[in-house]
Amino acid sequence: MKEEFFIKQFDSKYIGDDGAVVDLGGCNVVASDSFFEGIHFKREWMELDEIAYKASLVNLSDMVVMNSKVRYAILNVGFPKGMSLKEIKTLAFGFKKAAKEFGYEIIGGDTIRDNKISISVTMIGSAKKPIFRRAKVGEFVAFTGSLGSVGRDLRVLLRGGKVSRNSKFIKPLIRNNFFYKASRYITAAIDISDGLFKELERISNVSNVGYEFFGKFDKRIGCSGEEYEIVFTFAPKYLNAIKNIAKITKTPITIFAKTKRGKFRSICKENHF
Amino acid sequence: MKEEFFIKQFDSKYIGDDGAVVDLGGCNVVASDSFFEGIHFKREWMELDEIAYKASLVNLSDMVVMNSKVRYAILNVGFPKGMSLKEIKTLAFGFKKAAKEFGYEIIGGDTIRDNKISISVTMIGSAKKPIFRRAKVGEFVAFTGSLGSVGRDLRVLLRGGKVSRNSKFIKPLIRNNFFYKASRYITAAIDISDGLFKELERISNVSNVGYEFFGKFDKRIGCSGEEYEIVFTFAPKYLNAIKNIAKITKTPITIFAKTKRGKFRSICKENHF
Repeated sequence: MKEEFFIKQFDSKYIGDDGAVVDLGGCNVVASDSFFEGIHFKREWMELDEIAYKASLVNLSDMVVMNSKVRYAILNVGFPKGMSLKEIKTLAFGFKKAAKEFGYEIIGGDTIRDNKISISVTMIGSAKKPIFRRAKVGEFVAFTGSLGSVGRDLRVLLRGGKVSRNSKFIKPLIRNNFFYKASRYITAAIDISDGLFKELERISNVSNVGYEFFGKFDKRIGCSGEEYEIVFTFAPKYLNAIKNIAKITKTPITIFAKTKRGKFRSICKENHF
Repeated sequence: MKEEFFIKQFDSKYIGDDGAVVDLGGCNVVASDSFFEGIHFKREWMELDEIAYKASLVNLSDMVVMNSKVRYAILNVGFPKGMSLKEIKTLAFGFKKAAKEFGYEIIGGDTIRDNKISISVTMIGSAKKPIFRRAKVGEFVAFTGSLGSVGRDLRVLLRGGKVSRNSKFIKPLIRNNFFYKASRYITAAIDISDGLFKELERISNVSNVGYEFFGKFDKRIGCSGEEYEIVFTFAPKYLNAIKNIAKITKTPITIFAKTKRGKFRSICKENHF
């Protein structure tokens, strides 16, 4: 009954069969992320629509850094037993808000009873030119926005404090406008889900590059996770093009290093499982 | 660390980025199912590889009745904190066993820490001729295999008893050989996850048909869920073709009703959320 009520919140001709038949052209990209109560959030930290919206954006962030436009989303949602229809509607609203804002369709999934809110979102999209994590030696390395506020806000929440509804912890800022435009100049990119240093290690691992930093980063910046800003590399000849796109899309970027031969290891404590 | 260990169990060139870039031709079908400890199974009922295998087959069953060959699977897996690397390997083995047996590739997903085993599997495939739930009036209605043993075995397990490793509750029987061959003669199909009567109601709802039953079904047969047998309809002129394919693929089928104008409502208690 609650399952049907939840599904009815979404309007897609694809919903209602065992699977969804979709038509995909071009190069297809698939990404999936889980967002569970007690692991990624506590109920008292966020409204239900904010929870669904963030669960969607966390996955959307992966799609954007792959340079993929999202076409379809599949939702797997576990509800606690006591959830009311009104609450389910609010949760559904958050999913719909993200889908509307970023222009994709929710085509199906599965709902089950759980002891907490457990969400997995899978997205399917297409990319004309997918972007991977492989950087080259001698490239500039930059990140979008500013880093550190999410870690700070998370510490406040963990202490029982309150943060602004506009905190990036509640509402990640997706840099799609900048990234899609800049993608033709970008060699490698990754979204900052586990902290800048960890993502730099990941790029290092697949690219065999180290970094010559232009300055020092505090751990509170380099280890702040769930920022969902983008770290990316590009050839020096594209410096002006990148700066220009940052300017017209009003996206702050910080060029903070150059890739060199070598290896980079994160110094952050692993928060993740 | 456990996340990396788990991912390393799978060998796919697609794994290791924020998303997976895949190439899909034809008509694409997507299906997703969740399989959670405490909801769908208890740890003491099944080995870890059986859990992963069943989680895969439950979703595969949806793909098969859509007449779709599975190409890719995305896994979202929550692990309890105390799980050992050996246990994670056993779980991964179950996923790999299903993928090998049914010829698809595991291309990514997400792992998180949870208080129980929580699995969501999303599959992407392609179908030359997808089959939906819409039946016509005057068609035969049949199901594969036999029904009732899963409900019976579940009652044994819930009482603390033991069932055979070959119980369809532990190891669903996927009727892919029969179904792919018979699909050209089939109008509507659905897999029996919530009991025969409930699935007949679903077909009724989208097709505006009722059923003229050839005999009576006990509730223990009509309401037995998680059977993962297939209920399907076909035009009478294909009776011999269907019977012949059942014979050569050694698939028992029971032709039990004819569709008529009308409406059908399940009389089973809803077990589901």
